[in-house]
Amino acid sequence: MKGNIVVGQSGGPTAVINSSVAGVYAAAKKLGVKKIYGMVHGIEGFLEDKMIDLGDYLDDETGIELLKRTPSAFLGSCRFKMPKIEGHEDVYEKIFEIMEKHDIECLFYAGGNDSMDTVKMLSDYAAAHNKPQRFMGVPKTIDNDLPVTDHCPGYGSAAKYIAASLKEIIRDNESFGAKKPTICIVEIMGRNAGWLTAAAALAKGDDCSGCDAIYLPERVFDIDKFMADVKELAATKSSVVIAVSEGVKVADGRYVCEIGREVAVDAFGHKQMSGTAVMLADKIAAETGLKTRAIEFSTLQRAATHLASLTDINEAFQVGYDAVMAAEEGKTGMMITLDRNGDAPYQCGTSAYDIHAIANVERNVPDEWITADGKGLTDGYEKYARPLIMGELQPLFVNGLPRHLVRK
Amino acid sequence: MKGNIVVGQSGGPTAVINSSVAGVYAAAKKLGVKKIYGMVHGIEGFLEDKMIDLGDYLDDETGIELLKRTPSAFLGSCRFKMPKIEGHEDVYEKIFEIMEKHDIECLFYAGGNDSMDTVKMLSDYAAAHNKPQRFMGVPKTIDNDLPVTDHCPGYGSAAKYIAASLKEIIRDNESFGAKKPTICIVEIMGRNAGWLTAAAALAKGDDCSGCDAIYLPERVFDIDKFMADVKELAATKSSVVIAVSEGVKVADGRYVCEIGREVAVDAFGHKQMSGTAVMLADKIAAETGLKTRAIEFSTLQRAATHLASLTDINEAFQVGYDAVMAAEEGKTGMMITLDRNGDAPYQCGTSAYDIHAIANVERNVPDEWITADGKGLTDGYEKYARPLIMGELQPLFVNGLPRHLVRK
Repeated sequence: MKGNIVVGQSGGPTAVINSSVAGVYAAAKKLGVKKIYGMVHGIEGFLEDKMIDLGDYLDDETGIELLKRTPSAFLGSCRFKMPKIEGHEDVYEKIFEIMEKHDIECLFYAGGNDSMDTVKMLSDYAAAHNKPQRFMGVPKTIDNDLPVTDHCPGYGSAAKYIAASLKEIIRDNESFGAKKPTICIVEIMGRNAGWLTAAAALAKGDDCSGCDAIYLPERVFDIDKFMADVKELAATKSSVVIAVSEGVKVADGRYVCEIGREVAVDAFGHKQMSGTAVMLADKIAAETGLKTRAIEFSTLQRAATHLASLTDINEAFQVGYDAVMAAEEGKTGMMITLDRNGDAPYQCGTSAYDIHAIANVERNVPDEWITADGKGLTDGYEKYARPLIMGELQPLFVNGLPRHLVRK
Repeated sequence: MKGNIVVGQSGGPTAVINSSVAGVYAAAKKLGVKKIYGMVHGIEGFLEDKMIDLGDYLDDETGIELLKRTPSAFLGSCRFKMPKIEGHEDVYEKIFEIMEKHDIECLFYAGGNDSMDTVKMLSDYAAAHNKPQRFMGVPKTIDNDLPVTDHCPGYGSAAKYIAASLKEIIRDNESFGAKKPTICIVEIMGRNAGWLTAAAALAKGDDCSGCDAIYLPERVFDIDKFMADVKELAATKSSVVIAVSEGVKVADGRYVCEIGREVAVDAFGHKQMSGTAVMLADKIAAETGLKTRAIEFSTLQRAATHLASLTDINEAFQVGYDAVMAAEEGKTGMMITLDRNGDAPYQCGTSAYDIHAIANVERNVPDEWITADGKGLTDGYEKYARPLIMGELQPLFVNGLPRHLVRK
């Protein structure tokens, strides 16, 4: 590679998105790239020419190790949707102008479905206008809903946090062993796909009885049936813990959290979820008189780098690294995918795949991994997900707390 | 000690309450005590003669190490209030009868204010009726509100979890750097005392700007002033994160979370908190149109043994151990206190203190540790609290998750 490169982060943060930046940096260094830029707040900041020189932070291996242990988007993120090309050529030209100004040959963008749309639009524009610059997508989303790739960096760590926290919540909820159980409803992220909520199934093991029911958005949520399920559980158990996706919908298409209140909408037209657990817990308390508790993992499930999966950290690094290597081979308009070669032992490689098959496509939890009663996951899911949460990378503790790398 | 002993756990669980059971066990073994019983679900289970032989679980050091890494009450907890003696002699006689039946010479009870009342009532009854059995309190509460002792086992780990999670939440909230900030309200436990919420102050450091405001229940909460503070912050910052105690009250004495809804009450007459952050976040969203997020740490803050403080684990073990040693010396009706001897280096010893000065007394955050504007903590608090969150004990990870010890 003769020119420089730039890497950006986009969309909701994950516990390991910075490991992908570290991977991009390491590969570019290996190739002798002179300037490795980071866009501040993604393409939105790039349009204002806001960049940092990653060498200022990562020139030694300590910086890279610290970056791997840093949650959220080190470079800053954005939720910027590229406009359609027709009538907005100025926005596109501006990006190429900034790239030329800094002699940037390749742009790497780490993100999920919406961010891959940015990669697609930019590479399409380059192809249509004979621009030499190349654009590569680096997968990242706790939602795990990108197609083609076996799984998405960020998912394993979120799943590990969810399963580990649920083990702690279940033990806490069991501690009183009262005749009247406490009903604990735990709300987990995932607008349309149930991957994160499915991770609740991983809590179960020799030392944990697991969740009593797990409700994914892949199935219609029947509130009457849910209430009957809860009452049945409450009649026989001294502790009930139920995991429910923030994205569960009733038969008429409304989200459960929308029932009885207004819900805000973001720049991509996505409804801002949350409130599902509170709504259900309040309903149970009102109808049964039982003690209830609503817990939302909220942003902790995507930011808890202190409990990240080492497998996930390593794979996030690898997709960043391999995106640079693919660009070095002249590839553009592609995303790096994780390709599983085996479960036992778990093995995973990567390849580059056409971004057009990926951008804006969402992948749900397969039907066959949801149990027939719609309240749990099969062994097939466990076999898929367990390897993704394996391994730990101990945080660097300073003054009793995990230390993070920050932009100056 | 010639007879056997029994240890029980009571009240809300903590991340390290099991370490105290391990300490009791280790000391009793050292003294050659034959049977070391654990009461299942505290004094409530003991009244039904429900016990386990701790030797079945802890006979090797692996068991003890695993118990130290196990959250929530391994023995099961209860919220059982001893009735006043007059008119309820049968309840007291029943307890002594069960003790005699199993040749139990000493009873150790780990808990907070309410649990120390049980120790007081039982030792008072023994004194009044010339019973030879002895009763010792082992301090335990994330609330850190027991008097006399410098701090309470359980607090350091909860504080570490709160500060570490806030660092992650703050980074996440900062990631978008939008012109319009997201206002994140984080609700922290603590019915009357602000110790847990104060721990939010520990998040601040070289790599974290910290919370923008911290509201403790030690100060009257003025909603109008709060709204003005939020609007001022929102006008100048791209991210606002505010920590607020679940126990904040307005001038007329109502909890903020009570405003506009009914609140349940437990066996001790304590109101069941939660909902403060949601109430405030909804109000901000309605009045400003800004994006808000409400996060409650809920039971995670008391159950997150995966992020426990090693100092806390060791001290929890020590107070259990020293309670047995004090009983061996013939002491009864006392609680073990932690006595700080120095901050730098941090040093802490223990002694036994009259339970009458401890039971039912609550200690608040001292006035001089709350900043004049009522929205933060002073360096005095930092100096007090920082040593308590120092050190880590790596969980034993099995299949990607922390492994716990369970009763058969």
